[in-house]
Amino acid sequence: MAKGASLSGFPEWLPEERVVEQQAIDTLRRIFELNGFLGIETRAVEQGSSLLKKGETSKEIYLLSRLQEVGQENDTPVEDRLGLHFDLTVPLSRYVVEHSGDVAFPFKRWQIQKVWRGERPQEGRFREFIQADIDVVGNGDLPEHYEVELPLVMVSALEALRAFGLPKATVHANNRKLSEGFYRGLGLTDIEGVLREIDKLDKIGADEVTKLLVSECGASEQQAAACLDLASMSAATGAELAEKFDALCDKYGIAHESEAYELASQGLNTLAMIVDESARIRPGAVIADLKIARGLDYYTGSVYETFLDGAASLGSICSGGRYDNLATQGKRKYPGVGLSIGLSRLVSYMLHTAGAKASRQSPAAVLVAVWNEDDRMRANRIAAALRDRGIATDVAPTAAKLGKQIKYADKLGIPYVWFPGQEGDGDEVKNIVTGDQTPADPTSWEPDTVYAQQTVVVE
Amino acid sequence: MAKGASLSGFPEWLPEERVVEQQAIDTLRRIFELNGFLGIETRAVEQGSSLLKKGETSKEIYLLSRLQEVGQENDTPVEDRLGLHFDLTVPLSRYVVEHSGDVAFPFKRWQIQKVWRGERPQEGRFREFIQADIDVVGNGDLPEHYEVELPLVMVSALEALRAFGLPKATVHANNRKLSEGFYRGLGLTDIEGVLREIDKLDKIGADEVTKLLVSECGASEQQAAACLDLASMSAATGAELAEKFDALCDKYGIAHESEAYELASQGLNTLAMIVDESARIRPGAVIADLKIARGLDYYTGSVYETFLDGAASLGSICSGGRYDNLATQGKRKYPGVGLSIGLSRLVSYMLHTAGAKASRQSPAAVLVAVWNEDDRMRANRIAAALRDRGIATDVAPTAAKLGKQIKYADKLGIPYVWFPGQEGDGDEVKNIVTGDQTPADPTSWEPDTVYAQQTVVVE
Repeated sequence: MAKGASLSGFPEWLPEERVVEQQAIDTLRRIFELNGFLGIETRAVEQGSSLLKKGETSKEIYLLSRLQEVGQENDTPVEDRLGLHFDLTVPLSRYVVEHSGDVAFPFKRWQIQKVWRGERPQEGRFREFIQADIDVVGNGDLPEHYEVELPLVMVSALEALRAFGLPKATVHANNRKLSEGFYRGLGLTDIEGVLREIDKLDKIGADEVTKLLVSECGASEQQAAACLDLASMSAATGAELAEKFDALCDKYGIAHESEAYELASQGLNTLAMIVDESARIRPGAVIADLKIARGLDYYTGSVYETFLDGAASLGSICSGGRYDNLATQGKRKYPGVGLSIGLSRLVSYMLHTAGAKASRQSPAAVLVAVWNEDDRMRANRIAAALRDRGIATDVAPTAAKLGKQIKYADKLGIPYVWFPGQEGDGDEVKNIVTGDQTPADPTSWEPDTVYAQQTVVVE
Repeated sequence: MAKGASLSGFPEWLPEERVVEQQAIDTLRRIFELNGFLGIETRAVEQGSSLLKKGETSKEIYLLSRLQEVGQENDTPVEDRLGLHFDLTVPLSRYVVEHSGDVAFPFKRWQIQKVWRGERPQEGRFREFIQADIDVVGNGDLPEHYEVELPLVMVSALEALRAFGLPKATVHANNRKLSEGFYRGLGLTDIEGVLREIDKLDKIGADEVTKLLVSECGASEQQAAACLDLASMSAATGAELAEKFDALCDKYGIAHESEAYELASQGLNTLAMIVDESARIRPGAVIADLKIARGLDYYTGSVYETFLDGAASLGSICSGGRYDNLATQGKRKYPGVGLSIGLSRLVSYMLHTAGAKASRQSPAAVLVAVWNEDDRMRANRIAAALRDRGIATDVAPTAAKLGKQIKYADKLGIPYVWFPGQEGDGDEVKNIVTGDQTPADPTSWEPDTVYAQQTVVVE
C-alpha cells in the first residue's frame, strides 16, 4: 500500500512525490503524441448497463447515488444507475460509437485517467488508480500491423520511464489464434477451459495443470502434455518461433494442411512479425511467450503482458491485445488493438522501490528575499521580471531574519535566493547549494542549467 | 450544455476540442508553477462526514456504493459512506491536516481536477467539471499580502487564456471585515442576514432588497439605504476607496474611533492594497466592488469574483477569498486564501462562443506514406528517425492509393506527407497545405515553425 494513503486503496502523494507522477504522465503523453495518438478524456461515469457488459471485473463497480436520493437507491435497476468506470476501454467503445461520424479511422487515441474499482479494502489493492492507455480502433476492419506497432509504442514509453527508475521492461506476446489452432489441432474443443487452466501454470505448477486439463477439459494425458509443451515455448525471433512450432505440430501430428494449422499459422505469422520488427528496433524488448493465457478469452488475436526485470511481484504492468469486437453499431464492427499501463502501481514502485524523487519540492528556481514588509513590492517586481522570462520564482512569505528566509528556500529545495539591492547597491543572487553569490539583474540573469527546472532524479 | 455530451451535465469533447482543454490546463499549470505553487492531486472521494461539513452545496453530493453492496446502502450512515468531492477545498483542508508534518508552510498549492455535483440533470448545469484552484495555507497565521498576490496570479492565468479566446477578465474584490464593520457601525447585528439580502441586488433590484432588509434583518429605512449605498461603491484605487468610504461613514455617523470603523478599516486597507498593487502590475485587472456578497458568510477577509467582458451570462468564472478556518487540528488553525476557476465552463465558452480550436486534430506533423505493405518497415524507420528528433509522426494506415493517404492526413490536419524514395531516389516531403514539395532527410529535416506543433487558434 502506498505511504500517505489515509483511506486504504486510495493512493495520495506528497507534493514532491506528485512531481514524479506528474512528470511520468507528461512523459507518456509526449511519447503517445510523438507517435500520432490523439488525446481524449471521457467522463468518469458510465451507465450501469455499459459497465456490466464486460465479464471479469463487473463485480468491482462503484455505483453513484445522489445524496437527495438516499433511501431510494433500490428503486432504480443497477443498469439504469450511473457508475464510475473501472477501465478506459468501456468508455472508449462508447465514445467511438457516439462519435463515429466525427473522428478519422483508424482512430488512434491515448487516454490517461483515473479509474475506480469498488473492491473491499485489502492490502495492496488500489481502489482508485491511474491508467495510461493507447488504442487504435478501425471502422469495419483494422490492419494487422497495428498489432506490431502498439506494443512497440509502449516499449518506447516504458523505455522513457527508465529515467524514473523503472527497470527494463519486456513485453511477452502470444496470440489467441495460435493457441486455439493448436488446441483444435490436438482435437480439443473446450478452448476457453484449456486457456483457463494454462493460466494457472505459474501458480500451481505443471502437474496440477495436467490433472485439471484431464479432469476439467476432457484432455487425454498426451493432449495435456502437448498443451504444456506449447506453453513452455518462447522465442526471440520469428524464425525460431516458426521452427519450434512446426516441430511441436509434427510431434503431435497436426497436419500443415489442416484448418487448425491454418488458424494457428495466422496467429504465428502475426506473432513472428511482432518479435522480428521489435528485435530490429529494440532487441529483446518483445518476446513470444506462449504461456500468456490471461485475457485470451476476450481477445481475438495478439495478447500482451509486460514484466519489469527484477520486479516479478508487480505482475504484468502493461497488458492488452486485439479485440475484434471492441464496439459494434448495428452491423458495423469496430475492431481494436490496445494496451494499458497501470500507472499508479508503477509510480508507487518508482517512489518506494526505485528511489525516484523530485529534484526539489517547489517548482521555483528562485526565492526573492524581503528585507522588510514595506519593501515587498520591490521583491514582487523582481519576481515578476524573472517569471516573465520563464523562471519560476517565489517570494519570501515574511520579512523574517535572512537565515529564516534561506531556511524556507532550503526546505522547499529552491536553489537560489535573490537579494534585492539595498542603499543603491545592485541585486545579488546566491546559490544556496554551492554557496556562490554573484551580482544579478532580473532582466538578464539565468540559472545554471542543472538548477533551472524541477526534474525527477533517481537516487 | 456542451455539444457532444451524451449524458446531460457530463461534458465530453471531441479530440480537437480536447486539445483546447488540455492546452488550457497546461497553460494554467505553467502560470501556477511560475509563481511557485506546488501541484497536488487528491483522491476523488472523501468521507461523507467531511463532505457534509460545508453548508451550501451539501445537497449536491454523489455517494458511492459497491455493486456488491446494492440493497444494503442504507445500513451505513451517510457520514460513513464515501462520496465524490464537490470542490477542491474540502480535500485541501483534509490534506493539509494529514500532511502538516511533511509540507512547508505557508503551503502554496495548485490543483486541477474534476469535481462532481450530484444534481438533478438540468439545462446548462455541469454535474462533472474541472476546477483549477490555487490556495496558500498558513500554519497558525498567514500574512495578509497573499490576499493581494493570489488574485494577481489568477489575473496572469486568465490573461494567458486570452490566447484561447477569453475576453479580458476583471476581478471584483470586497472584504468581509469592511462590510461587517460598516453594518455594525450602523447598529445592525444580523450581519449574515444583511449579506444574504445584499447578494440578491442584481436579481431583484434595490427596492426589493430594501424591503427585505427592513422586514428580515430588522433594519430601519435609513440603515437599509446605507447598506445599499455601500453596495453601490466601487473604486479603482485605494485612495478613491478610502475617500468614498470615509464620506459614507461621515454621512451615516460612523465614528472613526469606533470598534466598528476599526474593523472596517482593516478590511479597507487590505482591499486598497489589492487594487493599488494590481493597478501597478495590470491596470484595471482588479477593482473594489462592494456589492460582492456571495460567500462572505464563510470567508473571513477578502473575497473575489471574476467576470469576463461581454460574458455576463457566465457569471463569476473565478471566485474565492480568505478563510481563517480552512482547517483546524486541535487548537492549531490553518488559515487560507484561495481562488478557483470553473474550467469546464470556460472551455465550453472558448469552443462554442470564442471560436477556439486546435490548429490540427492530430498531434502529428508528418504522415509517412506507404507505397506497399512490404515497404511498411521503411516507413516505420523514417517515422522513428523523425520521432527521435521530437517530430510527432504518424504512418499511413494502409498502402492505399496515394490520394487516399493524403486524404487521411488532410482529415487529421497533418500538414506534411513524407514520400519514401523509390528506386534509388531520395525521400521527399510535401506540405499539403502550401503544396511545396522538397527533398528531405529524416535525420535533418525540420518542419516550418508554424506547422511544428499542434496549437490552439482562435477564428
